[in-house]
Amino acid sequence: MPTKTNISGFPEFLPAEQMAFDIIVAKITAIYQSFGYVPLETAAVERIETLTSKGIDSKEVYALRRLNAQGDDGDKDIALRFDLTVPLARYVSQNYANLIFPYRRYQVQPVFRGERPQLGRYRQFHQFDLDVLTDGANSLPLQADAEIIAAAWQALTAILPEGTKFTMRVNNRKLLLGLVEGAGYEGEQIIQAVKVIDDREKISDEQFAQRLIEIRPSADINTLISQISSKGVTNLIGLNAAAQQGAEELQTVLTTVAELTNNAVNILPDLTIARGLDYYTGTVVETRLEPAPELGSICSGGRYDNLTASLSDRNLPGVGVSIGVSRLAAWLMSQPPYNAMAATSAKVIVTGPNAASICQMLRAGGIPTEQALGEKSAGQHFQTAQKRGIAYGIVADDSGIQLRTFETRASETVEATKLVAHLQKILAK
Amino acid sequence: MPTKTNISGFPEFLPAEQMAFDIIVAKITAIYQSFGYVPLETAAVERIETLTSKGIDSKEVYALRRLNAQGDDGDKDIALRFDLTVPLARYVSQNYANLIFPYRRYQVQPVFRGERPQLGRYRQFHQFDLDVLTDGANSLPLQADAEIIAAAWQALTAILPEGTKFTMRVNNRKLLLGLVEGAGYEGEQIIQAVKVIDDREKISDEQFAQRLIEIRPSADINTLISQISSKGVTNLIGLNAAAQQGAEELQTVLTTVAELTNNAVNILPDLTIARGLDYYTGTVVETRLEPAPELGSICSGGRYDNLTASLSDRNLPGVGVSIGVSRLAAWLMSQPPYNAMAATSAKVIVTGPNAASICQMLRAGGIPTEQALGEKSAGQHFQTAQKRGIAYGIVADDSGIQLRTFETRASETVEATKLVAHLQKILAK
Repeated sequence: MPTKTNISGFPEFLPAEQMAFDIIVAKITAIYQSFGYVPLETAAVERIETLTSKGIDSKEVYALRRLNAQGDDGDKDIALRFDLTVPLARYVSQNYANLIFPYRRYQVQPVFRGERPQLGRYRQFHQFDLDVLTDGANSLPLQADAEIIAAAWQALTAILPEGTKFTMRVNNRKLLLGLVEGAGYEGEQIIQAVKVIDDREKISDEQFAQRLIEIRPSADINTLISQISSKGVTNLIGLNAAAQQGAEELQTVLTTVAELTNNAVNILPDLTIARGLDYYTGTVVETRLEPAPELGSICSGGRYDNLTASLSDRNLPGVGVSIGVSRLAAWLMSQPPYNAMAATSAKVIVTGPNAASICQMLRAGGIPTEQALGEKSAGQHFQTAQKRGIAYGIVADDSGIQLRTFETRASETVEATKLVAHLQKILAK
Repeated sequence: MPTKTNISGFPEFLPAEQMAFDIIVAKITAIYQSFGYVPLETAAVERIETLTSKGIDSKEVYALRRLNAQGDDGDKDIALRFDLTVPLARYVSQNYANLIFPYRRYQVQPVFRGERPQLGRYRQFHQFDLDVLTDGANSLPLQADAEIIAAAWQALTAILPEGTKFTMRVNNRKLLLGLVEGAGYEGEQIIQAVKVIDDREKISDEQFAQRLIEIRPSADINTLISQISSKGVTNLIGLNAAAQQGAEELQTVLTTVAELTNNAVNILPDLTIARGLDYYTGTVVETRLEPAPELGSICSGGRYDNLTASLSDRNLPGVGVSIGVSRLAAWLMSQPPYNAMAATSAKVIVTGPNAASICQMLRAGGIPTEQALGEKSAGQHFQTAQKRGIAYGIVADDSGIQLRTFETRASETVEATKLVAHLQKILAK
């Protein structure tokens, strides 16, 4: 008998959890649609050469092979996507002539990483990405960076329990690279120093200074550390041209996001944010969930000027963010309202000889309704329904319609013509 | 430079198509939820031993391997699902103790088949499944079969263009097997004869009779052919016990579906339907889309008494149907309203110095709104927006709010406080 468990690192939800997850996804979707973004779903597989052109650790890529294929196997060169950005770049390059730019899209799909399973590490998990790209002929104004951040802020506000604090931290790679260069780093040293800055939260102040000075003993790390520790952008002085441009861009993005959110966003400049050695070239953003900093950044991204460089001759500039929705949902499920979801879509269960017609009437009235199955008593059906999270039961027989409220055990007779309106009123509470 | 095309057999949609696909999925989802079904998403991968326990052609299974993995590869035994039924059986076996029965679930996810790509054959496509299972301790009444068929009928009615004719054809495997047995077939011959009956539409009457007689020269194929050609169930006479039970079950299902749909369903008994050599043990159903019979059955399924037999010691009876939503969507996209979808979620585009605050106002009022990006003129922005399928544009500057209707080129000044209500009224038309 085959093993009936699922596979480590490939989590699945129980019904109430899946209901919660779907609600989280629907809320984010509604916000992104309100900004005019269109959905995209890409195929689960990409060519291996497309995936590896971005320099991911190829050990983490799941390649496909046809089981027991003989000779004719043309599928040796395909593998599962590990993020949604590489598929976006490939999709836009491929469909360039049929897309209307600026192209604003959202995409929520699972991605696959062949990591060794360990606590909290998924090998399949969902990302919820939001990007806007323009064509090669037009530059993308900083308004786009602000729009992406504002939309993500609104989406996070919509899914988090009311009053949950989260902080969006924004930097600009031009500013960061300019500051590093200004401190005396050159060539390869710049990337090495940025990598150390990216690791800053994981190491002590002494280790931080030590590692920076090791890269270039003559570097002015005191000025650098003081600059990247700055809580503001406008107070930086003596910047080189690159840093100056980055500082202006960062300030514009901060101002515009505030404008787009009526200053409701909790957004800060953070000059230590680098987003690793990613393809970002300007704005970079990370988001910390204050009650759960252990989640890491729940929403990250930035601007890229050359996303499709390895896939086409065009440089399509874009900016995007990704919500780590699987990891965030796992936390949300311990919070209201997600920790109290029903294990059914139904709001009411109906039993009795006239159940079929009453069910139809309620469904047509917009009330999701379960018809009791099988020969049990109404009491037994109601007990099961209550376990599922249904709060109301109906017995429909020739003597009329009895509506039972499980919690209070109250029972009332309702006229058929008034049933839908009566239940709508009760459920709206 | 890597190839930038996607991979044959793994289709993807352009924005307007994806909008249409998502609407189709949302409509089916809403109907299934109205019947109280809960969502399920299973992991994309299953253990190979779980997949092959159902006897699929293993050449069609996509197994995974970690690219460049060395030694430590624990992922050699996993592969992509090829349907949603095997994952359902595994999920229910695995989570038996945490599910509340009857368990009603819907599931819409891609499945993967390593077929040779050819016209109309996808290697990744979406199925939209609906199933209800009960636990081993309770039998599942025929009301469940009827509910599944009625829900699928309502879902198809919701997604097909108004007035599109489709026919659901229902049979019962007990009836079919009983008729075949009654004609004299024994043992292995029964399955062979059922297979020929299943192929009936693909061969001539002569070939059909010829192949039936070859299996058992002494079989009473005249009676058999006359019986399975019957347009009704109640007029069958001289049935053996199995056939009699199947006929009664079929009649009950037909009557109950009619009741659950106020006789609106176009449903027929069709005694030739066998659903191949699948795991079905009672009701079987297929659905023909009258304007596009070349699609084959757009919605098929049936009852199984032993779905989880190969995965657990429990026999969990269930009944389900699957809509081939990728193939059906491909057809629907040539039909209204799906052939006239916009390539954006936005209903209006806003430009001008006060665009940000007007956009926020409209979004808060439930109107998806695109903010114009970049330094073009309002006319240029509006032209691009119109190409995308947006019908209205707003110029918001200090002189006020100008609303343009692109089709008529009409322009009007609207007070800020009345803008949301005004647009809601226009868009509701």
